[in-house]
Amino acid sequence: MANLVIVIQCKDQVGLVAGNSGVLARSKINIISMREHVDAVENRFFTRLEVEGVADVSQLEKELREALPSDADVTVNPTPEKKIFVLVTKEFHCLSDILVRNHFGTLGAKVLGVAGNHAHLGDICRRFDIPFTHVSHEGKSKPEFEKELLAVLKANPADYIVLAKFMRILSSEFIRHFPMKMINIHHSFLPAFIGSSPYQQAFDRGVKLIGATGHFVTDDLDQGPIIAQQIIPVNHTHTASAMMKAGREIETAVLAKALNLVLRDKVFVYKNKTVVFE
Amino acid sequence: MANLVIVIQCKDQVGLVAGNSGVLARSKINIISMREHVDAVENRFFTRLEVEGVADVSQLEKELREALPSDADVTVNPTPEKKIFVLVTKEFHCLSDILVRNHFGTLGAKVLGVAGNHAHLGDICRRFDIPFTHVSHEGKSKPEFEKELLAVLKANPADYIVLAKFMRILSSEFIRHFPMKMINIHHSFLPAFIGSSPYQQAFDRGVKLIGATGHFVTDDLDQGPIIAQQIIPVNHTHTASAMMKAGREIETAVLAKALNLVLRDKVFVYKNKTVVFE
Amino acid sequence: MANLVIVIQCKDQVGLVAGNSGVLARSKINIISMREHVDAVENRFFTRLEVEGVADVSQLEKELREALPSDADVTVNPTPEKKIFVLVTKEFHCLSDILVRNHFGTLGAKVLGVAGNHAHLGDICRRFDIPFTHVSHEGKSKPEFEKELLAVLKANPADYIVLAKFMRILSSEFIRHFPMKMINIHHSFLPAFIGSSPYQQAFDRGVKLIGATGHFVTDDLDQGPIIAQQIIPVNHTHTASAMMKAGREIETAVLAKALNLVLRDKVFVYKNKTVVFE
Amino acid sequence: MANLVIVIQCKDQVGLVAGNSGVLARSKINIISMREHVDAVENRFFTRLEVEGVADVSQLEKELREALPSDADVTVNPTPEKKIFVLVTKEFHCLSDILVRNHFGTLGAKVLGVAGNHAHLGDICRRFDIPFTHVSHEGKSKPEFEKELLAVLKANPADYIVLAKFMRILSSEFIRHFPMKMINIHHSFLPAFIGSSPYQQAFDRGVKLIGATGHFVTDDLDQGPIIAQQIIPVNHTHTASAMMKAGREIETAVLAKALNLVLRDKVFVYKNKTVVFE
Repeated sequence: MANLVIVIQCKDQVGLVAGNSGVLARSKINIISMREHVDAVENRFFTRLEVEGVADVSQLEKELREALPSDADVTVNPTPEKKIFVLVTKEFHCLSDILVRNHFGTLGAKVLGVAGNHAHLGDICRRFDIPFTHVSHEGKSKPEFEKELLAVLKANPADYIVLAKFMRILSSEFIRHFPMKMINIHHSFLPAFIGSSPYQQAFDRGVKLIGATGHFVTDDLDQGPIIAQQIIPVNHTHTASAMMKAGREIETAVLAKALNLVLRDKVFVYKNKTVVFE
Repeated sequence: MANLVIVIQCKDQVGLVAGNSGVLARSKINIISMREHVDAVENRFFTRLEVEGVADVSQLEKELREALPSDADVTVNPTPEKKIFVLVTKEFHCLSDILVRNHFGTLGAKVLGVAGNHAHLGDICRRFDIPFTHVSHEGKSKPEFEKELLAVLKANPADYIVLAKFMRILSSEFIRHFPMKMINIHHSFLPAFIGSSPYQQAFDRGVKLIGATGHFVTDDLDQGPIIAQQIIPVNHTHTASAMMKAGREIETAVLAKALNLVLRDKVFVYKNKTVVFE
Repeated sequence: MANLVIVIQCKDQVGLVAGNSGVLARSKINIISMREHVDAVENRFFTRLEVEGVADVSQLEKELREALPSDADVTVNPTPEKKIFVLVTKEFHCLSDILVRNHFGTLGAKVLGVAGNHAHLGDICRRFDIPFTHVSHEGKSKPEFEKELLAVLKANPADYIVLAKFMRILSSEFIRHFPMKMINIHHSFLPAFIGSSPYQQAFDRGVKLIGATGHFVTDDLDQGPIIAQQIIPVNHTHTASAMMKAGREIETAVLAKALNLVLRDKVFVYKNKTVVFE
Repeated sequence: MANLVIVIQCKDQVGLVAGNSGVLARSKINIISMREHVDAVENRFFTRLEVEGVADVSQLEKELREALPSDADVTVNPTPEKKIFVLVTKEFHCLSDILVRNHFGTLGAKVLGVAGNHAHLGDICRRFDIPFTHVSHEGKSKPEFEKELLAVLKANPADYIVLAKFMRILSSEFIRHFPMKMINIHHSFLPAFIGSSPYQQAFDRGVKLIGATGHFVTDDLDQGPIIAQQIIPVNHTHTASAMMKAGREIETAVLAKALNLVLRDKVFVYKNKTVVFE
């Protein structure tokens, strides 16, 4: 019998926990872990359960839907392997980390392929037997470039698209094809240093900490829901270039953490914010 | 109508969440927050709820007990102000922090009084109108000293006794008067550097991080259930004395955090470990 | 013979370390610790030494000036006790921490007095025998209010003025009386959330870390040189108000750290950035 | 002209900084960065300089030796590429991180080869064109196993041997072939949880933080000089197995940091402790 993750999101009201836990109790399904959150400002209910002892997944999903309000977003997810596609430019650290985890089966997803607007990272992909597509942006208009990229993504239907230091700004039109399906690593502690050259901005301002942010991509640049953030201390000895080098360590770590959370169904999105059951 | 905290601990079985959430739903009581944990190794269930809309506290407690197994430990706690008593020696930092928070009403408890085996900290207590008792250990046997101290504590019945850098080792006999009621700050990252002079031990070992640990006191020295821990980086420039100075900052912070968690009923103890719903 | 701190800042050139260390060696003065930094972008040299065995301080200062370029900023500082004055509004946490450290002699400075635009914190000052002046802003124009405040500060000449959660925005004219002499704690991770209500801004943006920044005050709001920064994790359970409460802990810690660094002559300022020899 | 690192260690006395900075000034050599430490307990002097403008390296080394006490340990190191050899068992995370950094030229050393007591990690080495030798311990006495391993290491003379989750305990005899040349990652916050199964020990104790330690290997198990340490928070939801998974992230990070520090000549060893000029 399958070990299952159940995620539910809906308008808050009295009796939601009783509703879904009652269904589970009547079916003699044991709750291994349960997290619940009510956003009192938005009057919104979120819950994530891990359960065991489920004989009939579709029956359970049906019973949960009946026990909950009709607008409830209920997913009974037998943790199937998810699929991701990765976009890159030239920097190797985030991609390599993903390829290593994928190779050894600890990523929580299968990497379908990688596309880069430069050819630099094709070699590392081939070493791990992962298809790499070079979609150059040079000599093309933005719509032309995005049309090509879109064709690659459509040919490789993935649950999530990961921007692993992909350094081109994508248009709103492009992003709308993948709502809450694109995950980006931004190389600053958002909302500080939005946009380009955040390490140079951090150096110029003389900050004592630098950060990295994993977030969903929305059509407003660097403004999407934040999944995870991390910082490291810097000081007067760090040039902008040294900050960039130091920052790679947390970019890698934060993107890995954000992916881990999303791929294990621990992240809910509502109104440009996330609920994360770590 | 009161805003309530409900804490429940019992042997795990199917239907516990359904049991208590069913009671709440039938009484139209809204769950503001809910944390739940099943210790699969120990087969033990823990939950903490914050609810609103309770008309009759004793009726709710009765109904919860009926809906749960007979061995369940159920407390419906209308967050009354708790009372603490503080034991100190000479160091001011943890005590002062507690006195300040008590004075401005953010401690989550009322400080009944302070006793010290030295007289040094009497002055700061008087400045905050908190009774201070000097119970000297000098020229006394350990049983004599502890008998005097016990008399002071019995005269000031507190929910928790806080050892805020109290530097005398208490006997098992003494500690058994206050099972899981004494909270200590140990000036190391337990279980490293158990016992005396942990900063000297840390200096001698050449560690790169030092820590502090807030824990319940059991009759096995520095072996009680851990509530909170924190570290700060140190390096070759830190003498043992500099480590001690730096350590005071995290001793203060960790004890404050441990108290905050315990006083808000967020800490469960089972078999020398804690479940902490932060 | 005094134990001394020597701080030197000047345009970088070959031979600066040889110059000042040669002076010390010829006088048989032992270097206990030495930190040195060259800002290669600005071509600027910074050094801080702790030395022992100095018989004649003014003679040493004279010899150091002769051995260094004429534009060098040389201070031989026999670590006399510095004096600070504190400005507050209503929040107690940063002020109380300063008062406690001052009372027990670990602040590294003497608190001359405290002024508040509200009367709330007068009581805690009196408990520590520190003069408190209520300078209300109500019913006064900004120039009138600042004139009164300036009179208080001029009557209490301090090495540094500490804004310990002082919630009025001071005019450029006012600030220019105290260049690089005012230290502020800002309740965000600057440059994120400049200005008012940073915790509300952080809540609205859904960040996963909140921060605090200790910085020198310049006439550009929240844009002065940063001395120290720290963060703590937050999550979806934190309302703006809970972030504010959590943030108090790091506001207290960061201001304490920034003061410790400045009062021990470990902070150099050049072109809106700091060099901090921790 | 080469950019150089100079490292000096000797008994402390007046005039050491003047001695070496005088040599540099007379040769018109510019100091880019300089770190200095005096261990007052051990009366020991350590310094690390980065300089530019050196025409004749051997002449500079000669002059520095003449200017310093005869017992001084002086190395003028034109940062040549160092060579490392890696020992592994089955776990992939630390090795993969090293292989990726080596492949992209950011490791600060060249990986000569990898040996494993299991064959599991041969594949990932081959993918990066790094020689892998399987030296099985099965069916062999410890001396036999170590004799084989020693032969591999002698055939691949490296500056440092990195134990990247090598799970066999090496004999004192073996270790003495490589004094202060073996770097290990221990999966706990030493000195807590020395020896085997530290995550199980951490779980049993109920700690709230787990750590990892990068250290030099001496013949006393897990007692060698510590280079770097790091921690991450854990809680009641972490089983021993979950702690192990979470711990891999910091094991990888700490070993990478320790290697970075050692390979850039930022680590000095004296009497079982390190001086680290980060």
